[in-house]
Amino acid sequence: MKKIFLCGCQLVYDVADESTFIFNISVAKTEHQRILTERLTLTPPMGYQEYVEPILNNRFVRVNAPQGKLEVNYEAQVMVSYPDIEPDYCLEVPPAQLPIEVFNYLYPSRYCESDRLLRLAEKEFGDLPGGYGRVQAICDWIYENMEYVAGSTNSQTSAFDTVTELCGVCRDFAHLGIAFCRALNIPARFVTGYAYQLNPPDFHACFEAFLGDRWYIFDPTRLVPPEDLILIGKGRDAADIAFATIFGPVTMESMNLWVDLKQP
Amino acid sequence: MKKIFLCGCQLVYDVADESTFIFNISVAKTEHQRILTERLTLTPPMGYQEYVEPILNNRFVRVNAPQGKLEVNYEAQVMVSYPDIEPDYCLEVPPAQLPIEVFNYLYPSRYCESDRLLRLAEKEFGDLPGGYGRVQAICDWIYENMEYVAGSTNSQTSAFDTVTELCGVCRDFAHLGIAFCRALNIPARFVTGYAYQLNPPDFHACFEAFLGDRWYIFDPTRLVPPEDLILIGKGRDAADIAFATIFGPVTMESMNLWVDLKQP
Amino acid sequence: MKKIFLCGCQLVYDVADESTFIFNISVAKTEHQRILTERLTLTPPMGYQEYVEPILNNRFVRVNAPQGKLEVNYEAQVMVSYPDIEPDYCLEVPPAQLPIEVFNYLYPSRYCESDRLLRLAEKEFGDLPGGYGRVQAICDWIYENMEYVAGSTNSQTSAFDTVTELCGVCRDFAHLGIAFCRALNIPARFVTGYAYQLNPPDFHACFEAFLGDRWYIFDPTRLVPPEDLILIGKGRDAADIAFATIFGPVTMESMNLWVDLKQP
Amino acid sequence: MKKIFLCGCQLVYDVADESTFIFNISVAKTEHQRILTERLTLTPPMGYQEYVEPILNNRFVRVNAPQGKLEVNYEAQVMVSYPDIEPDYCLEVPPAQLPIEVFNYLYPSRYCESDRLLRLAEKEFGDLPGGYGRVQAICDWIYENMEYVAGSTNSQTSAFDTVTELCGVCRDFAHLGIAFCRALNIPARFVTGYAYQLNPPDFHACFEAFLGDRWYIFDPTRLVPPEDLILIGKGRDAADIAFATIFGPVTMESMNLWVDLKQP
Repeated sequence: MKKIFLCGCQLVYDVADESTFIFNISVAKTEHQRILTERLTLTPPMGYQEYVEPILNNRFVRVNAPQGKLEVNYEAQVMVSYPDIEPDYCLEVPPAQLPIEVFNYLYPSRYCESDRLLRLAEKEFGDLPGGYGRVQAICDWIYENMEYVAGSTNSQTSAFDTVTELCGVCRDFAHLGIAFCRALNIPARFVTGYAYQLNPPDFHACFEAFLGDRWYIFDPTRLVPPEDLILIGKGRDAADIAFATIFGPVTMESMNLWVDLKQP
Repeated sequence: MKKIFLCGCQLVYDVADESTFIFNISVAKTEHQRILTERLTLTPPMGYQEYVEPILNNRFVRVNAPQGKLEVNYEAQVMVSYPDIEPDYCLEVPPAQLPIEVFNYLYPSRYCESDRLLRLAEKEFGDLPGGYGRVQAICDWIYENMEYVAGSTNSQTSAFDTVTELCGVCRDFAHLGIAFCRALNIPARFVTGYAYQLNPPDFHACFEAFLGDRWYIFDPTRLVPPEDLILIGKGRDAADIAFATIFGPVTMESMNLWVDLKQP
Repeated sequence: MKKIFLCGCQLVYDVADESTFIFNISVAKTEHQRILTERLTLTPPMGYQEYVEPILNNRFVRVNAPQGKLEVNYEAQVMVSYPDIEPDYCLEVPPAQLPIEVFNYLYPSRYCESDRLLRLAEKEFGDLPGGYGRVQAICDWIYENMEYVAGSTNSQTSAFDTVTELCGVCRDFAHLGIAFCRALNIPARFVTGYAYQLNPPDFHACFEAFLGDRWYIFDPTRLVPPEDLILIGKGRDAADIAFATIFGPVTMESMNLWVDLKQP
Repeated sequence: MKKIFLCGCQLVYDVADESTFIFNISVAKTEHQRILTERLTLTPPMGYQEYVEPILNNRFVRVNAPQGKLEVNYEAQVMVSYPDIEPDYCLEVPPAQLPIEVFNYLYPSRYCESDRLLRLAEKEFGDLPGGYGRVQAICDWIYENMEYVAGSTNSQTSAFDTVTELCGVCRDFAHLGIAFCRALNIPARFVTGYAYQLNPPDFHACFEAFLGDRWYIFDPTRLVPPEDLILIGKGRDAADIAFATIFGPVTMESMNLWVDLKQP
């Protein structure tokens, strides 16, 4: 199934003094996402540096902005071909066979303290057959037990907090899914993207689990079907791929996102 | 200054049932470390898989061990040429110029919650001139304020804990150094190694900070001069490069390390 | 020195369904505070229950409010005679002599994890001579190192958080002062009150330390001189004496406080 | 049902320098516990001070011990009459009717962060009918989900930790029970005691919940039937009633407890 989306964002900042931004807002280039057209505009016009991280292909843009207003406009036309999934063939791979390069995604990270969730993960999901269904069960648990409450968490909130406090936003739902997976020896990582028909529009976060021989996407918020997500970045957790990491005295003035489906 | 060390370890495990080990005990191959001879022996003899991580060149060995006793012997003869350092030329690089590939080491990780130490780092070190001296001041602060108490911390202890509780072991000292550096926008990472004349012998941990155009090593425990450390691994924090990550019902029976200086 | 204050508050709630309130807004009756006149009014008129806790004399009012709007008005005219303090005679009392009834205020509580601050307290204040001056030094440390930022903390923030994060509001300043004192074996407790010329007007929190043979008040925010505080409650920490503890679906609509000095 | 127990303890300390001990090892005097004989012996002989806390009647003993060895022997013969319980009549009392003096046991404390368990308690127990059965369900949950692992926790471990990490000792089981109860507006407090046939012998901890018009004891470890517990102390949590709180450089050398049932 192929879809063509037009997506983008407009970010407006008040820069009180010379500051550096690392943006991760460009659509990822993957075998399932083909970028047809793309444009990044800075206002006032200024130079920027692009960097593609060689392992995960995350696309970072660095902007060194002078004092004043900074407006960032990004827009892309993307063909997304979301592959069919056959859950029955998505098996968990034991550590004995797991590609060593994905072990990184088994280890705890800032927001996913899987080392503290071992017994809980075992209690809740240990008896289930391994594979796609077990990761789906993790997502179901999160969906059923956590409440989505805008503003209930902040940039320090981690999976260890939310697994008990049971509320948060998409980022927290994803972190908890990742932590549970890792606690069960299923590699898992954080992904961000533009999401079609997400309301209110915002950068979305969900997670990927490694099953069989590749990564599969899961969204414990159930807000966005996988085929309606246009991927931006991947990382250990939100610390790696904030849409904007800012060094300097900067205030965000406004943020707008949009995703449109191009009719065939 | 060149030194030749003979170093190694013997690890003995009781494997209650088929288990997988990821070892990170092999000496790193770097421009400053030349491995003259090296040998890894498993008893009983069994196959293993080597993997060199492409970015940091960490050398991992995977062993899938059957039930029974497992003895791992590693031994290497290494020529270490520790470069002269001119602290006055080791400047901090502002985010505006920092190579984008090192930004990863500015972000918080499982054991280094730099996002929670921003004000404290600023209070303690914000007024110092940036550069080697400032990282040295961080190490001095840790050395003077933290007490080295074997067994006082565990695998869940993080920099946020120890910055107040003020005791720990080498791993905790390193995590706190990293967290302070990142809070000041100095990239920092965790390193492990064999240490000459460390007493009692053990795997040692310290940290590297990125200054000027390369990484410099710092040891806030003051237990090991940099030229007496034979590097093994590098990572975001201890989660990435445990000397042994074990999947299965395994008990360690004994661990021995040794480092000898080969007389010229 | 005697002053007469007129103080009070107006609290307006939207009660979505029958709810119970425990208020702790009535001025404390102590040897230094004489209540000249006092009035509590509930609108719409409804019954309430008063309770004076026998040890600390905290005055609680329970209101079982029906669905609808609830307006609470409290007003008191209070003569406050703040005693002279001779810091040189305010000595710390060692546990060997301390009245056993104050040991409770040496133990850690929800927001004052003194058990985790032992080394830090020793490092910062261990070399100072015991007594009033040492508690004053704790207040100075807090004042100089913490930033008062409205809205930066919430009802879960504890001294262990703020001692590193270094920002908070009066309640957090007080909790940290208490935690440091207890870590040094100085009994300390949380106090609340109406504060003259506090801007913006709000319930104020500070703390008391036990020295010599009685409790002395300290305000690490430096916002309110002790003689301008009209005490309400005392407790182990904020958990004990919230101005309003609410059981039920209630929203606060507005809160007003006032304190006037009656001219002689 | 009446039973007569002989219980006691022998505590041996090495006191490196003059130190103060607060012991809470004396059997409580309650309407259900009658002390027939009792003896406290200090070796070498030295004076001590007894203090009975007026609200909870906890019996504290303060000893100011000189440098050297300190041996504490306590022994009591106690008639325990454990009342029959009719669970069907043990109702939860809503905050609207609860005696105000027990509200203290609704608030969070050092080891029982009930404020962070609100949603989890509601999710797990919110649909159950209130009363004895609901507290019993909390105990069942703890018993079924937590693993009793000696040495797995320490004096800083709290209910917020163990509710996810799912292991601990009797003290942790009790703290979690208390936290769940408070989160559901059921007053709950920590109790300690001598326990008949506990193996290995040790001070035991469990908790009480306030139902109907009095406190009922619950033991989520299922190690000790209520009628085999001889109560010592009650408090908000373990911070209040450690069997020994020590001020000074002291090492425990040995601890022995015994409880015998006197045959009729």
